[in-house]
Parts: sequence; structure tokens; C-alpha cells
Amino acid sequence: MTDPAFTDRFLTDFHEVARIGATEHQGVERQAATDEDRQTRDWFVAFAQRHGWRVDVDGIGNVFATVELVPGAPAAVLTGSHLDSQPRAGRFDGAYGVLASLHAAAEVERLVRSGHAEATHNLVVVDWFNEEGSRFAPSIMGSSVYAGLMDREEILAVRDIAGTSVREALSSIGYLGDAAGPTDLAAYAEIHIEQGRILEREGIAIGAVDSSWYTQKLDVEVLGEQSHTGATAMEDRRDALVGASRVTLLVRDICAEFPPGTLVSSVGQMTVEPNSPIVVNSRVHLVADLRANDPAIVQEARDRLVERIARVAEEERLDITATDFDVRPNRYFPQEGIAVQERVANALGLSMRRVQTMAGHDSVALNTITPSIMTFIPSVDGVSHCEREFTTDEDMVQGVRMLTGVLTELVGGALDGVSYPGTAPEDAR
Amino acid sequence: MTDPAFTDRFLTDFHEVARIGATEHQGVERQAATDEDRQTRDWFVAFAQRHGWRVDVDGIGNVFATVELVPGAPAAVLTGSHLDSQPRAGRFDGAYGVLASLHAAAEVERLVRSGHAEATHNLVVVDWFNEEGSRFAPSIMGSSVYAGLMDREEILAVRDIAGTSVREALSSIGYLGDAAGPTDLAAYAEIHIEQGRILEREGIAIGAVDSSWYTQKLDVEVLGEQSHTGATAMEDRRDALVGASRVTLLVRDICAEFPPGTLVSSVGQMTVEPNSPIVVNSRVHLVADLRANDPAIVQEARDRLVERIARVAEEERLDITATDFDVRPNRYFPQEGIAVQERVANALGLSMRRVQTMAGHDSVALNTITPSIMTFIPSVDGVSHCEREFTTDEDMVQGVRMLTGVLTELVGGALDGVSYPGTAPEDAR
Repeated sequence: MTDPAFTDRFLTDFHEVARIGATEHQGVERQAATDEDRQTRDWFVAFAQRHGWRVDVDGIGNVFATVELVPGAPAAVLTGSHLDSQPRAGRFDGAYGVLASLHAAAEVERLVRSGHAEATHNLVVVDWFNEEGSRFAPSIMGSSVYAGLMDREEILAVRDIAGTSVREALSSIGYLGDAAGPTDLAAYAEIHIEQGRILEREGIAIGAVDSSWYTQKLDVEVLGEQSHTGATAMEDRRDALVGASRVTLLVRDICAEFPPGTLVSSVGQMTVEPNSPIVVNSRVHLVADLRANDPAIVQEARDRLVERIARVAEEERLDITATDFDVRPNRYFPQEGIAVQERVANALGLSMRRVQTMAGHDSVALNTITPSIMTFIPSVDGVSHCEREFTTDEDMVQGVRMLTGVLTELVGGALDGVSYPGTAPEDAR
Repeated sequence: MTDPAFTDRFLTDFHEVARIGATEHQGVERQAATDEDRQTRDWFVAFAQRHGWRVDVDGIGNVFATVELVPGAPAAVLTGSHLDSQPRAGRFDGAYGVLASLHAAAEVERLVRSGHAEATHNLVVVDWFNEEGSRFAPSIMGSSVYAGLMDREEILAVRDIAGTSVREALSSIGYLGDAAGPTDLAAYAEIHIEQGRILEREGIAIGAVDSSWYTQKLDVEVLGEQSHTGATAMEDRRDALVGASRVTLLVRDICAEFPPGTLVSSVGQMTVEPNSPIVVNSRVHLVADLRANDPAIVQEARDRLVERIARVAEEERLDITATDFDVRPNRYFPQEGIAVQERVANALGLSMRRVQTMAGHDSVALNTITPSIMTFIPSVDGVSHCEREFTTDEDMVQGVRMLTGVLTELVGGALDGVSYPGTAPEDAR
């Protein structure tokens, strides 16, 4: 029943959108609320309007396109991902899910209108604002505000490094709206590249995400004293960059103290002041990131780090503060959603397994307000957040067919009445 | 003979100029060719014009004020320092020397015009462009171009981190001139705060600088691979910031391998890309600075560092390049200049000793083209390049009286015919 040409149209559009903000090595750079982000949003809106779908923008820059399958139906099925990217990033992370959702929604609409599928819910496609959090922290911003996990006014006041607020940036690209977005949800579905290598290594087409890792960040500020790199005796220096370097290595090295693969950690952001070639630095600010499936591992690692950071401060005569923030507990997706994915994959002849996500996603926020489904497709070499990120056309097309099947079930009411968020399977509790 | 009120006028002006670009903790921020730098330059020009001195600006933004003591005299005595500062810096470094030179020159002019001193040379006061090198690298820019040690066109093309060139920045503040500056020099004299703690510790008023340390920088570029801080396995990461942190600690720790006080080193500048909280960094650029009196120590430290950096690159699977630049050999100031300072200090009843400078100064560049004198006054706690930098009014005034005596000798021809640069004393060779 499926139109065989619809996945060709998806591929054409996917590779067209990948040209917006394209970098020289096949990647894209479209940080949140930049002009490149605006261009992809304009493309999204034009797609929706071409299909006769209503477009709404809410007060945090999320863009919704409503496919009215059942006029007046109360609860809607929502599907989407994000079009923003990290700096010099890959063209798949986020954008794949939005493009897949648009084309899957168009195909579901065709199936329903032609009597090949039945709908009891309407379908809404969304582009979430600022999933990446590179320009404006924290990440997963638009969907978290929509889900009531973050305060809209506080988030609108967040500023980037140049001092521009989220409110100003969204206004300047014309995407600060006043719509509410769908207020009654039946379910949420998202598809994304894995950003890991499990599916590729095992030759499996589809990953059904059953849970997300426990994550937390440490905001570390190192204060020393500015002095002259030439004229100041070594023993008189209080060098903030030396302290920050030691902290960075502590954060990396702590993973080796836990079983292999159970903990990942890194320092991604570091700002150095005054950052002049012949000045000993007085202040370094850095953000450390800790993730594990087991919350106890993250907490143990965090405690050991805080203790060792205090020792570095003493040894280097620095003031160092380490503050916990952005703590995200494990989240479990409903088992009923995994079952929907199993049925659809079986029907399409696609291999599937359960996976966890170490990365955060909009679906984790949505799963707190509606039963949610998160589907992965393979990533070559497991690399992401870089220009070398890659997924084959064949894998992408299989994912679009998978999502189309999932959405067809969902608009038919497959997750109606399911409780959420899901709970840990017996063996994981 | 000296007007007792002239040092009061110096203090009034010094504290007035310290208000330009003032920071909240008694410091200043007046990086080269910023609007704050322009304001101090305008103040310099106004001072000169009030005294009837001719003002010229050369093609690299150095500002010269000529005190015509002997109309038509061929060779001029030059004196000055720099009004630019590091970010959030002290108010003494550089500015003290320029203000001291202006007031000493005014007093010398008064002494000559009133028949209390004899001049065979004219006197020129200079504000050198960009001694600090924080906004535009390298440091000691204006005096090095004037002395023919750097190429003017190359230096005008140097860009700051925002992409603005030296040429554009100087034009925008109105200080890109076309004068040559004095073409025939009899001598150069500069006074500066010590930025170390020798004079303070020993209770000595005046330091006569006899030589400068050997210095060199290493430009280090660390290349890894951008990836996701959550989804990428630890063993798959090639984290440029981890490599840069290890390099930073190697640079600091190497000093402990040499006799105490013989080597100082640091990493002052570090830029991190893409610098996002949830991205493993792909590129870090840093500048290491090595200084010792003995060139063999710097070279040995540099060789050990380069070898160890290569090992870090291998262990972390990174590409790291370390390039030597800004190598500055030991420079010796002429013994005859030390003798002039001894005579003046004795006459004024000021205690004096010989010192070395670990920091670079405009006088080191000038000493390659004319016999030069470099004088230090005490720094409280030896701290510099920070807001806490401090020198007492009493010490500043003694320095102004010292410089006035030195300039009086120099315009009378005290260093005529002296060979330069000076050579190492027997025991230092």
C-alpha cells in the first residue's frame, strides 16, 4: 500500500536540507537560532504549507505542523526531532528525524485519506528548538519547556557567549511565536541516528530505545591570580589553567576506575581568562560531563572527583568550586512502545534490538508527559557531533519506513491509555 | 635646581591617566588600539601640545613628542614606554614610564632653558604601540618595527581574535600616521616597574638593568576528533583538550627539573574548539612561554618538552605540532649606561643595584639601534599583569627624579660614541 516513491522524495529532501549551513567536509553548522537554523525552519514551514498543514510557533521557538486527519479529535500524536546542530557537526543528528517525520506524516496522511489506514488521532510534526545546547545551555531546551520541565521565562533569558538572549535570538530570526502547541497528546515518536556502534557492529537495522543513561554535569570554576609569565617566580604563581588542566585529566582518568564501558566522562567546554600569551591565567571555567547507566557509578565518580578537585585547589593554592547541575535520572520508555516497534519491524522484515541511549534526546523530555517511542538507526563507526558522522541512504530509508509504520499504529490509537514514563525492566531495577 | 613641585604634577597626572579604562579593582584595561588606548594617546598628545612640543605618529602607531632643546641638532635622545595594557591589568606597567618620561622631559627642558643644564641633543618622548601583545601578537610590536626588527607591512596585517588587523585598528582610533619618527638617535632611556620582588625585598630604590633573559615560545596545536561526550566510548575518543591539558602540565612541571629560579614557564593562551559542553574537542591551540638567563637551560627544557609532547600525541592518538617562535636571545645593556645611572643615583642619594629583566621591554629592542638605559623601581609583592600590581607614590617619585637626572646627562652627550648592544660582563659569558 505504501507509495514506493515516497522514500525517494525523502532522500531528495534530506540531501537538499543538508546543504543549509554546509561545511567543507560534508558536515553542517546550524547552531540554535542562527541564520542557518532559520533557513532550515523556513524549509520546514514551506514543506508543511505545500502539504496544506497548519503551522504554529510556540513561545520557545518550537515549530509545529498539524496534519488534520480527524477534524476535532482531542489528542494528537506528535513526531519530530530537531534541525539545530552542534558547531561543525554532522548532517544527520536531529535533521534526519525531522525529515523522516515530515515524510512519514505525509505518507500516513495519504494512507488515511485513501482508506488504507484508520486514524483516531491527528498527527503533528515538530522541530524542537535548541536540542544541542551548544550556543545556549542547557540542551534539550525547546522540548523541556514544552514538557514543563524548564521555565519558559528563565530559558528565554539565557544568554550565549556573545551576550545575546534566547528571546533576542528567536525574535531576530522570526521564530518567537505565541501559539501553545498541541495541548493534549496521545503519544510521541522520534527517530534518530544511534551515535554509537552497537547496531552497526551487530548488523541490525533498528534499535528500540528502552532507557536513557543517568547523566550529570559539574560546573567548575578555577580562580587563581593573574601575573606576568616572565617576571613572576614559579613558586609565587597561582595558575588557574594549571588547575583546570589537572581537573580535566582527573575527569578523563576516573573512567578507568570503573568496569570498562560503564562510565563516560569529559570536559567539553573551557573558557580561559585573560588568555594572553604572556599572562598567567586567573580564571578558568569548565563543564565536566558524567554518564552511566547506573546512577550509583555517576555519584561515586562525582564524589571522588569533588574530593580530588579540592586537593588540587590546595596543592595549587587556587579557589575551585564544583557545582552539580543538569542532573538527568535514568528514564524508561514504555514497554508497550517497544512492542509497537517489534510489530512494525516484523511486518517490514527489519531486524531490531533493544538499546539504551547515553545521549540525551527530546524524546526523553516528551516521555515525561506522554507515552513515547524512540527509534535508532545505525551510525557508521558510531561517530557523531562531527563532520564525519554518517548513515547510509539505505539505513535512513529503512528508518523512514519504520517510522511510517509506527505512526500509522499510533494515529490508530496503539498507545492509548498506556502509562508513562515507563519503568525499568525487572533485571535493571 | 630641580623644581620641587614637578613631581607633584607627575603624581596628579599619573593618577588621572589611571582613570582611563579603569577596572573595578584599581586596575586598567587598555589593550592596544582599543578606544581606551586611544584616550591615553589623546591625553599624551594634549600634554605635548600644552608644552609646545611637536607631535608625530609613525606608520605603526608610535607617537613621538619632540622637545627641541637644540634647534637643528642631529641626534636625539629618546625616552618613553607604552600606554597599552594587558586585559584587567595594573595601572603601572608601561604607563608609569610614559608619564615619568613626559614629566622628566618637561623638567629637563626647564633646566636647559633656564641655564641649569646643557644640551647637545634634542629630547623626544615616545608612547610605543602594543608593547603587551595581548590583543595582537607578538608583543613589543611598535618599538620592534621602529628598530627594524619586525617588518611593518607584515605587522600591519596581523589580526586579533575578532579578525581586525593592526592596520584597521590603528586607523579606526586615528593613530596610523606617516611620520618616520627620529631617524638619528643618541641614546634611549626607559623607566619601568620591576614586576619582580628583588628591589622590594632588599629595600633598594633603583634597579639598573644590565641584561635580559633568553626567552622563547612554543606554538602548540593539538588535533583530535570531534565526537559526542555521551555516546562515544572512552576508548574511541581522540580528545584534543586532554592532550592540551597534559601539555600544559608538562610545561609547568619541567621547571622543577632545573635549579630553583633558573627557569620559568607557562601556558598563557589556549583556545578550544568547538568548545561545547557535550562535544569532545577536536582542536586546541596553545602558547607556551619559556625563560631563563642561560639559553642552554631554555633549549634543554624545550627539547625535553618537544620529546614528551610527541609521546602524549602517541598515547592519546592525537596530532600535535610544536613550533618554536618569538625566540629572543639575551641582551646586554651598555656598561656606560649603568655608570650613568650610578652617578645619578649617588647624586640623588638613592640606593641602586644591578638587576636582570625576565620580561621583555621596548628598551631591549631599542638597545639594538642605540645605547640604551633601562631603570626599574620596586613593585610591591613583585606582582604584575594584574589589578593588584602596586608601586608606592614615593618610589614612583624617586624614579621620576632618577630619570630626570639620567636624561639630563644624556642630552648633554653622556653616551655619545658608546658601542651597543652591550656585551655580557666577564662572569656571565
